[in-house]
This record gives sequence, C-alpha cells and structure tokens, in this order.
Amino acid sequence: MPETEVSVHVCDAAVTLAFSVLGKRWNGMIVATLGGGRSSFAALRRAVDGISDTVLSDRLSELAQTGLIARTVEAGPPVSVSYELTESGRGLLPILDQLGRWATANLAPQAH
Amino acid sequence: MPETEVSVHVCDAAVTLAFSVLGKRWNGMIVATLGGGRSSFAALRRAVDGISDTVLSDRLSELAQTGLIARTVEAGPPVSVSYELTESGRGLLPILDQLGRWATANLAPQAH
Repeated sequence: MPETEVSVHVCDAAVTLAFSVLGKRWNGMIVATLGGGRSSFAALRRAVDGISDTVLSDRLSELAQTGLIARTVEAGPPVSVSYELTESGRGLLPILDQLGRWATANLAPQAH
Repeated sequence: MPETEVSVHVCDAAVTLAFSVLGKRWNGMIVATLGGGRSSFAALRRAVDGISDTVLSDRLSELAQTGLIARTVEAGPPVSVSYELTESGRGLLPILDQLGRWATANLAPQAH
C-alpha cells in the first residue's frame, strides 16, 4: 500500500440514511415544493418540471411511507386528494433552504 | 377546478440546482466521505458501501467537473491518484451534517 493511501473513511451512517431518501431523483424537489403548502397532484406535477405522472405517484407513495408527507382525501364530489408535509418533512425545509443557497453560490446553472 | 385545488407552487430554482447534483445517487455520500479528508479511489470505494468501480469513477468525474472535488495525481512510482473536496465541496459539509441529524431523528433505518 503506497504511503499516499489514506486511512479508511467510512461514510457516515446518518448521511447514508438521509440520502436513501434524498438521493433519489425528485424527492428533494417534491419536499421543497410542498414547503409552499398543501398541494394537489396536478399542481405538484406542474411545479416539479419534467416529472411524469407515474414517477410522481411512486415518489409520493414512498414519501408518505417514510413519513415525510401526508395524503388527505376529501369526499367530494368531486373527490379531492391533496398532499402536505408532516412535521418530519417540514424539518427538512431549513436544510433545503441552505442547500439552495449553497447551490446558488457554488453551482453554475446548466448551459442552455 | 375544485376549491381545494391550491395555488400553483413552483419548485425553487436554487433547490432544483442543488438536487441536479445531490439528487443523483451516491453523490452526497461521496462528498460526505471526502469530508473525512483526501482519499484514494480504492479507499473511497471501500467507504461508500455498494458502489461499483464504474459508477464511482463516473461520479468522481462529474463532481470534479462541477467543481466540488479536485483530483491530484502524484508521479510515482507508483503513480498515486487522490481526491479531495474543494472549498465549494467543503461548503456542503455542515449542511450534510444537518441532514444526517435530521435523518437520525426522522427516518427509520431500513429493515434487515
């Protein structure tokens, strides 16, 4: 082993856990969007540019299962389904805000 | 449009930008691992459990291109290649730390 071989690092378990949710495409953006308030499926789909119905549906189910969002069904007519952050999900908002500030300062927007 | 249809939200451009990097599997974990210091490819691969050589290599190239990490080649023999965070990458560390704390408090580790 050459001398420049550095000591073994181990990725922090807590960070790994965080990215089991946030390292999945769209999840961070869905949570950030719901930070603006309760939203219908259609409004979410419009807000999260580029996501498909199927993928948004899958992501919402997963985020509900991990306890970050809650789904509410109001009997109609017409029946209305909406999504909002839970307390756990809201706990991410100040961190997402900091991530946004970091990105603005450190990442160049993708070229046109 | 039913009355429960909420106002249109738009996902914050800065958060979208942040997740153009962090919403890609492994990137957050690679940055967090390099928070422990300069690392060789082999040490990184051991630290980020489950990643393949090819994917790690791709991610390191992308992270270097976005300016989060720097690659150093030391003439040998043997030639040694190592990776470390740039100032931009180090700016993520306190935010990743907060994400880890949030995850520990809010997410259940995956079932065995």
